[in-house]
Amino acid sequence: MTAAALLQILGEVERGALKPHEAAAKLATLPFEDLGHTRVDHHRSLRTGLPEVIYAAGKTTEQTVAIFGSLRRDGVDVLATRVALETAEALVKAYPEATHNPLARTVAYRSSTSSSGEIRGHVAVVCAGTSDLPAAEEAAVTAETFGAKVTRFTDVGVAGLHRLLASRDELLKADVVVVCAGMEGALPSVVGGLVAVPVIAVPTSVGYGASFGGATALLGMLNSCSPNVSVVNIDNGFGAAYSAVLIARASHRSNV
Amino acid sequence: MTAAALLQILGEVERGALKPHEAAAKLATLPFEDLGHTRVDHHRSLRTGLPEVIYAAGKTTEQTVAIFGSLRRDGVDVLATRVALETAEALVKAYPEATHNPLARTVAYRSSTSSSGEIRGHVAVVCAGTSDLPAAEEAAVTAETFGAKVTRFTDVGVAGLHRLLASRDELLKADVVVVCAGMEGALPSVVGGLVAVPVIAVPTSVGYGASFGGATALLGMLNSCSPNVSVVNIDNGFGAAYSAVLIARASHRSNV
Amino acid sequence: MTAAALLQILGEVERGALKPHEAAAKLATLPFEDLGHTRVDHHRSLRTGLPEVIYAAGKTTEQTVAIFGSLRRDGVDVLATRVALETAEALVKAYPEATHNPLARTVAYRSSTSSSGEIRGHVAVVCAGTSDLPAAEEAAVTAETFGAKVTRFTDVGVAGLHRLLASRDELLKADVVVVCAGMEGALPSVVGGLVAVPVIAVPTSVGYGASFGGATALLGMLNSCSPNVSVVNIDNGFGAAYSAVLIARASHRSNV
Amino acid sequence: MTAAALLQILGEVERGALKPHEAAAKLATLPFEDLGHTRVDHHRSLRTGLPEVIYAAGKTTEQTVAIFGSLRRDGVDVLATRVALETAEALVKAYPEATHNPLARTVAYRSSTSSSGEIRGHVAVVCAGTSDLPAAEEAAVTAETFGAKVTRFTDVGVAGLHRLLASRDELLKADVVVVCAGMEGALPSVVGGLVAVPVIAVPTSVGYGASFGGATALLGMLNSCSPNVSVVNIDNGFGAAYSAVLIARASHRSNV
Amino acid sequence: MTAAALLQILGEVERGALKPHEAAAKLATLPFEDLGHTRVDHHRSLRTGLPEVIYAAGKTTEQTVAIFGSLRRDGVDVLATRVALETAEALVKAYPEATHNPLARTVAYRSSTSSSGEIRGHVAVVCAGTSDLPAAEEAAVTAETFGAKVTRFTDVGVAGLHRLLASRDELLKADVVVVCAGMEGALPSVVGGLVAVPVIAVPTSVGYGASFGGATALLGMLNSCSPNVSVVNIDNGFGAAYSAVLIARASHRSNV
Amino acid sequence: MTAAALLQILGEVERGALKPHEAAAKLATLPFEDLGHTRVDHHRSLRTGLPEVIYAAGKTTEQTVAIFGSLRRDGVDVLATRVALETAEALVKAYPEATHNPLARTVAYRSSTSSSGEIRGHVAVVCAGTSDLPAAEEAAVTAETFGAKVTRFTDVGVAGLHRLLASRDELLKADVVVVCAGMEGALPSVVGGLVAVPVIAVPTSVGYGASFGGATALLGMLNSCSPNVSVVNIDNGFGAAYSAVLIARASHRSNV
Amino acid sequence: MTAAALLQILGEVERGALKPHEAAAKLATLPFEDLGHTRVDHHRSLRTGLPEVIYAAGKTTEQTVAIFGSLRRDGVDVLATRVALETAEALVKAYPEATHNPLARTVAYRSSTSSSGEIRGHVAVVCAGTSDLPAAEEAAVTAETFGAKVTRFTDVGVAGLHRLLASRDELLKADVVVVCAGMEGALPSVVGGLVAVPVIAVPTSVGYGASFGGATALLGMLNSCSPNVSVVNIDNGFGAAYSAVLIARASHRSNV
Amino acid sequence: MTAAALLQILGEVERGALKPHEAAAKLATLPFEDLGHTRVDHHRSLRTGLPEVIYAAGKTTEQTVAIFGSLRRDGVDVLATRVALETAEALVKAYPEATHNPLARTVAYRSSTSSSGEIRGHVAVVCAGTSDLPAAEEAAVTAETFGAKVTRFTDVGVAGLHRLLASRDELLKADVVVVCAGMEGALPSVVGGLVAVPVIAVPTSVGYGASFGGATALLGMLNSCSPNVSVVNIDNGFGAAYSAVLIARASHRSNV
Repeated sequence: MTAAALLQILGEVERGALKPHEAAAKLATLPFEDLGHTRVDHHRSLRTGLPEVIYAAGKTTEQTVAIFGSLRRDGVDVLATRVALETAEALVKAYPEATHNPLARTVAYRSSTSSSGEIRGHVAVVCAGTSDLPAAEEAAVTAETFGAKVTRFTDVGVAGLHRLLASRDELLKADVVVVCAGMEGALPSVVGGLVAVPVIAVPTSVGYGASFGGATALLGMLNSCSPNVSVVNIDNGFGAAYSAVLIARASHRSNV
Repeated sequence: MTAAALLQILGEVERGALKPHEAAAKLATLPFEDLGHTRVDHHRSLRTGLPEVIYAAGKTTEQTVAIFGSLRRDGVDVLATRVALETAEALVKAYPEATHNPLARTVAYRSSTSSSGEIRGHVAVVCAGTSDLPAAEEAAVTAETFGAKVTRFTDVGVAGLHRLLASRDELLKADVVVVCAGMEGALPSVVGGLVAVPVIAVPTSVGYGASFGGATALLGMLNSCSPNVSVVNIDNGFGAAYSAVLIARASHRSNV
Repeated sequence: MTAAALLQILGEVERGALKPHEAAAKLATLPFEDLGHTRVDHHRSLRTGLPEVIYAAGKTTEQTVAIFGSLRRDGVDVLATRVALETAEALVKAYPEATHNPLARTVAYRSSTSSSGEIRGHVAVVCAGTSDLPAAEEAAVTAETFGAKVTRFTDVGVAGLHRLLASRDELLKADVVVVCAGMEGALPSVVGGLVAVPVIAVPTSVGYGASFGGATALLGMLNSCSPNVSVVNIDNGFGAAYSAVLIARASHRSNV
Repeated sequence: MTAAALLQILGEVERGALKPHEAAAKLATLPFEDLGHTRVDHHRSLRTGLPEVIYAAGKTTEQTVAIFGSLRRDGVDVLATRVALETAEALVKAYPEATHNPLARTVAYRSSTSSSGEIRGHVAVVCAGTSDLPAAEEAAVTAETFGAKVTRFTDVGVAGLHRLLASRDELLKADVVVVCAGMEGALPSVVGGLVAVPVIAVPTSVGYGASFGGATALLGMLNSCSPNVSVVNIDNGFGAAYSAVLIARASHRSNV
Repeated sequence: MTAAALLQILGEVERGALKPHEAAAKLATLPFEDLGHTRVDHHRSLRTGLPEVIYAAGKTTEQTVAIFGSLRRDGVDVLATRVALETAEALVKAYPEATHNPLARTVAYRSSTSSSGEIRGHVAVVCAGTSDLPAAEEAAVTAETFGAKVTRFTDVGVAGLHRLLASRDELLKADVVVVCAGMEGALPSVVGGLVAVPVIAVPTSVGYGASFGGATALLGMLNSCSPNVSVVNIDNGFGAAYSAVLIARASHRSNV
Repeated sequence: MTAAALLQILGEVERGALKPHEAAAKLATLPFEDLGHTRVDHHRSLRTGLPEVIYAAGKTTEQTVAIFGSLRRDGVDVLATRVALETAEALVKAYPEATHNPLARTVAYRSSTSSSGEIRGHVAVVCAGTSDLPAAEEAAVTAETFGAKVTRFTDVGVAGLHRLLASRDELLKADVVVVCAGMEGALPSVVGGLVAVPVIAVPTSVGYGASFGGATALLGMLNSCSPNVSVVNIDNGFGAAYSAVLIARASHRSNV
Repeated sequence: MTAAALLQILGEVERGALKPHEAAAKLATLPFEDLGHTRVDHHRSLRTGLPEVIYAAGKTTEQTVAIFGSLRRDGVDVLATRVALETAEALVKAYPEATHNPLARTVAYRSSTSSSGEIRGHVAVVCAGTSDLPAAEEAAVTAETFGAKVTRFTDVGVAGLHRLLASRDELLKADVVVVCAGMEGALPSVVGGLVAVPVIAVPTSVGYGASFGGATALLGMLNSCSPNVSVVNIDNGFGAAYSAVLIARASHRSNV
Repeated sequence: MTAAALLQILGEVERGALKPHEAAAKLATLPFEDLGHTRVDHHRSLRTGLPEVIYAAGKTTEQTVAIFGSLRRDGVDVLATRVALETAEALVKAYPEATHNPLARTVAYRSSTSSSGEIRGHVAVVCAGTSDLPAAEEAAVTAETFGAKVTRFTDVGVAGLHRLLASRDELLKADVVVVCAGMEGALPSVVGGLVAVPVIAVPTSVGYGASFGGATALLGMLNSCSPNVSVVNIDNGFGAAYSAVLIARASHRSNV
């Protein structure tokens, strides 16, 4: 059933051709989603005001370029994640105003409308070692594309606490903290003990041997003794930033 | 939104107080499920014609007795699974017409209406060893309560193929076969190679050491080299029988 | 012992050279399978009426082409699965009437006899995301080659329920549903709650990090709270379709 | 080094007995935490304004009662989690104004000062089945004790979507959603697709066989296809509520 | 089909009522196993000359006593393994000539015929620590009941090689060695390097923490750098002895 | 301490320069192994009379060729396993009398002395599917090189029992059976139920998805319900054959 | 071969009845360990000067009391670990000079000789939470019984760094640090970054859900980003202290 | 806060512009680490006197060369581990005095100052098979670069104990033993039983099938029955040597 079909039913009620109770019976099983069918693709974006996101892993360059272009034509901001180098180059060639971040493996497009917008909330992105940077940058670029201010804290692993403690004052200014760490994944617990805001932990696949591709860091973070820590999938900088932006926005509005 | 609310909107359209397109906008987000809210509890049962099922594990005796009675009063057949002995005795005391199967840990109630019904489909329940009987009986009782004919094949493990091969002719008469096995879980593959109907495999927690509570049997069944095998959770005789009954009914109707 | 040998024994009985009880003793340990030895290869196919299947993974192009040709010459339908591109091209070159589906990685051959046959049963193939398409297409092509009608429902993941709910009416027409999903593998539970027929769930290896190559989706599906769900191995679209076709045929005959 | 020692150093500087650069050298390695040593216990509570929390598992009744009393005397609100029945009864006997929630296994004490306070933020606590209630109630009681408004949505598992969809309007009013589910853990993905706020997922140990004590639900949630989902440890209703309250407060302030 | 049925067919051939080729067609699908059906229970025992074995775990005392008595009446030797104390006492009370070994959790019955028999082969049972004795004794008692000579080597773990090396000469006399070890499971590798006969390794559930109930010992034994080591399930002293006896017998005959 | 040193001590005793009890004290800590140091490399081969084996995986072509040549010069038979194609070609080029089996990935050299030897024992090598052939051939070639007669049974998986049952008579002639199977690893249980000799099970890495590289087959075999089954590492055809040869030899001598 | 036998050989050499080279051949395979057989039990203790240790888990009270008494009579110090309460009470009753530590589950006996000895080395025992105390106390008591000075640092988990940092100066005085932690196991990494001596990490089984009985802490510690961390088994306070004492002694001697 | 800021505060105290108690309040939250910020990078090296270490895995050749050069300019010794061949060649080309060890994958630079230093402590590096050499050499080179004497014991696996026992005297001279082993990882237990010093065990990824990339060796070592064994991550020769050097130094000083 389409919107047209619904209007037809309602029109019949208006004309008296259909009784309300008859219409109610028809509508009881209404696949109402069909009404919004053409909006489904943009449903999340419209509701949250956040850009459209393309997860490029497993898509061909052609598919990614086509989807990117289709979304961009609709005037919404677009963020492509996990973009292979070849695909990224094709995107930037096709849409020169798009920005490629090779470390984060992202290509972002912000329309002039959106990019004129004010900054909404402050996300800290903390990263244990330089090897964790791909996940951390994916988080940082996502948060920036989604309109948040981002402060990066790099290479502040727990084996040298001085580096983290030295940044505590800066860290305390953020509305929410994304922490990326591999190996033993201890950093979110330490950061969680220093701040009074939510911490989103991103285990990374950095490590070898008994790191089991990030599973050890993941398990460590889930067992954090700091109660303000929640966790996303291994290397999922995007997901961490998505939740972080929702939190930062709410916090930001409250600080105005 | 309730049915009353829907009728009110439609009434306003009928009276001309609301334009069709205005009503359409309101209905676009209509939580239509509320209309059917009072049917939710019996939704699956009504649609499939199968009895209501109570998973008694984790429920108190009082809760189980109360729910059982409530469903029974609605005239539907009721099957309670994973019923502890104490709870089973309370159920049978409260509803003497209910049947308790201690091995299967089930209590079943079939109304006179349903129990007069014809048998619909034929389910074979095959079981590798006597220790697998609890899962097998749960499957058998479920299938019988749901109206299928059940033939049991017990203690036909693969280490003594003669026993299974001797029953082949009988086995070939079933519309679908449920196979319960623990330890290495090899029986579904062998049965799958003998029959031409779907096989639902139930790994059981029977075993010790590297059986890991049934995980080994589960993994073995998922890797079956017989293509007509699908698998349910460890010890889930109920779930296997549920799918089996749906299959047997369809097959049965086609054999009439 | 060969058929000739059996005939010799029976001939001796006929001639009175051997007493029935003596012959019985000899036949008690009769490796009767030897009689049917040359039919072994076609045993399953003859019994079920389904095509021969070649699992091409791990076979050389030469081996696959040879087996395909041998089966085809016997007049049976043939389906090769997990066919690498190079092998597929060799098959189509050798047997131009065969059909290659690159997404499904299948090559199918249907004889004029079989393809004239009527459609037997209706299988819905539902797929959570575009990345799940290889498994879904393997299921769809298998079901079609085996003579079923197939309806595809693509990209209806649980994070956007509208898309699935909008297709509910179509979905309800199927005799059985195959559901392919990776990541958290939640789709079979949701579909299982919407339909009244068996659901065969196919976990896919789509995902990263804690998806552990499909193990997470597999475990999720095995724990489905919908009782009409059974599960096959990761990415095993073929196996799901095999069981689904057996179910759909039975259902179909019953609907005639 | 104590506060007295620090004052002594500073006094020496004031008197000119120590040069600033000499004092700086001494202070460079200052274990400044000693200064705040007696505040350590209340550090988190003072900073966040949230109650003190006692994790009672693994503590004796005597220890728990003593710690509870000590904290209460300091005038702060107190929440004890994972409280065994015997311990809970001892707590309520000792501190009659404390509230015991047997399902949540919590004992909470709110001082008259704090309990007069306004509600700060709105947390939805969603729960797949009645067996998930202990984790859900732990989350709900925690959030309430921490000053948030809580709305509970119980028994809305994905196998019967009608129940959840019927509550969508209510759900959309929350600032943050805590979702508790065992078995396949699919509910957070579905809820995440319906709302535009952060979702904190709590896998529960509800299930059997291949649920592996909640590991399956945990893995499923970590692989959620909804990007606004983050996850805490199995059965960790407290931790989910802790993060949720921090989010809800920020959101709440912004809505004023 | 029964033996009677077969005789009937053969009788018809004898009488000329059935042609040999017609009988051959019928017999091609003959479920010949039915002929031997009543021998199934004693099939393995009769073929190998080894005693009947009852795996008592999961059987009630009544069931175990009944089966034990039934087998004993047939004149065969009987070995019951994994016998709970209560059941063992009932067995010995019912059959005073049976022998209960509490450490091995076995009850054995050897008929006067069999026990008069000669010793057939020599099995060494080696055990790393005193905690491994239950598995080792299960192996030793099994081998003895099955007619082998057994030499025990106890408490010869690899952390004190002197103890093992001091027994090397004795060890070299065995036809096969069963090695039981928990924790890191290193002993089979060391023993395998000292002897020139097959080693059957039994991982035991002895250990704590990362021994994971014997899984660590199991994995270690499977990775043994000694090529003459094969492995059975955790704590499966019976299975190890079963294979060992088969090997020792063959070796023994060859030494005569 | 060297042999020279030992002789010196004994010489001193002979000369009366050292008292027996003084010499005993010195010898108590004698590292006697040093005496045999130069024989260590050939120790196992000399003791068992079996060929030297080179595990070529992880060795360079140069290293493998050098070791092979060194052993060959000592007049012993040599078997190299896991030989990459390039290395195999180099070996055959260097030692034209060596035999390369590409499927088994072996290169074997038997001296004229040894190859004239009689066959010692009979090993059956059974294999579930053609994909399991590499492990099966490694076992077969190993057993042949070690002097056993080998009978191969290929493609007799449990999904088509006819094929295996048809070979039962042949199978019963072997002194020991090596069974190679991947996927669910059910074949050793079935074979174990048919024969009265030891079965050495080789799980193979054949399979996909939940076969987890052979772990599922491994676990299945360890849980075999046939008591005469023991297991070696995944794909370890060599190890299985090594134990099998030791068993077959003992059996063979006994059959003379 | 016994000492007597050795003396006999040497006597024959002395008498000229045996030539040195003949004796050398006999001694080449001498199981010299037999000479020291009665010293085996005290071998480790004599060599290291450390007390004898009884691992009481899995031993009966009677066995433990008997072994304890036997060792004590030999004049060596004795430490029993993992002692159940009942056994501990029996030990203290039998040997009143023994000391029972219920938290550590140890019973220790130090002879007047040994206890007069000087302190040898300084071991710090650090513990993340009060629930980790059993493992920490087992380590502390072990180190003290073995003659080391022990300093305890309790409840200094990483979620509140102030507590640990405040103790840094004290911590720096130790020769080696044992760190016990459950949950995410992050503390050894942080401690390892603060000190310049070896850290022995003890994962504890403290935690729930995804702590998997201490496996998460174990994995985290193995992946520590501090290079001076090595790890022992879960809850193995004894083993950590054993290595720590060996290290502390060496360090201590060097500090004299 | 910087050192300048601290001096300013202290200056204000000196001038009387700030009271000591006011300054104390400010300093209570002093991020004192900032004072030492520029020393952070060399903190560990300065404190321990050990060289700087670069973990080159995951760094580009350019990055590694730049960091190496920067550290070298500071006059400290430098050790780069896990260096790919291409990077190693670039390092040696840039810094010809650096030493490349291809087997260990290390590049080391020792300044003339440090290399003149005396040897401090004696580390034995024991290795089960030649395939374990990369980890063993990483350990040996690390220990040598850090100033220890290293003795290597290669190819002394437990399947041929003679080789290890023959080296016992040499082994007993070391202050600490690093043992590298793959497969079943049994060697550290055996070595631990022979020596009276700490053993650091390094599981290696050598093996196949159920070695699971070194996890089996890791688990085996953690369950060692020798109490003087502690363990590091799979293939972590560097970490083992780091702890070993700290131990050897302490021991060495004590032996002077």
